[in-house]
Amino acid sequence: MHSAHFTAETSSNGVIERDFTVGEVTGALWSPASGSDRTPLVLMGHGGGMHRKAPAMTGRAQRLVADGGFHVAAIDAPGHGGRPRTAHDEQEIAVMQQAMAAGEPVGPIVRRYNAHLAERAVPEWQATLDALQELPEIGAEGQVGYYGLNMGTAIGVPLAAVEPRITAAVFGLFWPESLVEAARQITVPIEFALQWDDEHIPRESGLALFDAFASKDKTLHANAGLHKDLPRFEADSAVRFFVRHLGGAVTQPA
Amino acid sequence: MHSAHFTAETSSNGVIERDFTVGEVTGALWSPASGSDRTPLVLMGHGGGMHRKAPAMTGRAQRLVADGGFHVAAIDAPGHGGRPRTAHDEQEIAVMQQAMAAGEPVGPIVRRYNAHLAERAVPEWQATLDALQELPEIGAEGQVGYYGLNMGTAIGVPLAAVEPRITAAVFGLFWPESLVEAARQITVPIEFALQWDDEHIPRESGLALFDAFASKDKTLHANAGLHKDLPRFEADSAVRFFVRHLGGAVTQPA
Repeated sequence: MHSAHFTAETSSNGVIERDFTVGEVTGALWSPASGSDRTPLVLMGHGGGMHRKAPAMTGRAQRLVADGGFHVAAIDAPGHGGRPRTAHDEQEIAVMQQAMAAGEPVGPIVRRYNAHLAERAVPEWQATLDALQELPEIGAEGQVGYYGLNMGTAIGVPLAAVEPRITAAVFGLFWPESLVEAARQITVPIEFALQWDDEHIPRESGLALFDAFASKDKTLHANAGLHKDLPRFEADSAVRFFVRHLGGAVTQPA
Repeated sequence: MHSAHFTAETSSNGVIERDFTVGEVTGALWSPASGSDRTPLVLMGHGGGMHRKAPAMTGRAQRLVADGGFHVAAIDAPGHGGRPRTAHDEQEIAVMQQAMAAGEPVGPIVRRYNAHLAERAVPEWQATLDALQELPEIGAEGQVGYYGLNMGTAIGVPLAAVEPRITAAVFGLFWPESLVEAARQITVPIEFALQWDDEHIPRESGLALFDAFASKDKTLHANAGLHKDLPRFEADSAVRFFVRHLGGAVTQPA
């Protein structure tokens, strides 16, 4: 097993941001600058074509650290961020770009390619979690959440289905076809976002994926608007969700 | 037109609670004890069989005043709380109780009776709003929200459809049949709650009512659970919704 190897550290606004690698996987870890004793850890999965420190990711990390006192970790998905693309990655991305340029539906390609990426990413996330739980400031006892939309859901749902350390998750903005079976195995609390007028994901599809989760405690947030119109206040809602479910988050040491 | 006539006043936890009447309508007004200069006003409609100061109402009022700095007003619906029942009220309530005792669906009766109550309650709400806006601490310039679930939605949707002073509303937990036409006339921001496993209101019905609102800015919150299982955190969400949309709420005077 690999340990986390830290490669860079910066600090601003009360948040320490450290880049790390676990084997070939590149990641980022955000933590409260004030220190915190084994607070919960939130894993964040980024969207397709993005990377671990895309603006949406750093914005969410900032909120989770500042308002929840959490540690927050993100890794680049295979073929994303600083990580090399395989010939298969290049081929699928080319097919997707052709479909977009031709105005054809990209859903079938996104589902197929993201299911492939999830097979590669789930063991990477598990190895990353192993390594992060070796750190004294995180430890193996703290609770773990997962937060990812779009491709972050395509990877996060199969991850949460096989990873009992994840005890609460925020998902959304994906199709059910490739995920329903995994969703049916998930029983932890879920917050799920969809866009009511999503031009890519039919309304009934989003509702069907939410319905598939076996969780007794699950909440759907559906907002009017197109796929990319998800309101920013949903990021604040996600922080409150993790504060409710990961517990004992906010202890500001003197 | 009637002015508000105050009949009692108490104060606790930073909230002043005043009972009032406007004509024959009995109401309650909650305000910040610290005083506030023309902050927005939130109107609250109670559920069937309840009254203006039922625990769910006072709990929401406390949150709205403390966290939003709002004035909050509730009135007893016709035949509810301290208000006399007509022979028609007695008859409809008896029919409803018989259906419940027999384990028969109450939806059709609730919809019919609540539509009748809404016809009586809408002008009462408008007269109450006229009277409250005469108070110097509220005024006619401040923004007005409406917050009501169950029967509070059956009355609130037709009210908001005809009352342009209401600029944001939280609704939920009702059937579409009697409300769709009014909902289609509403364009202000909406937050709408439904229960995913509601044993009285079919899921598709709740979704259809949410869909009917013409608002460009609308959010659905669907939680797993039965009709009465609406999570308490939805009350906090409603406060944040009104803070976002009614604006300028929280100004603590020195």
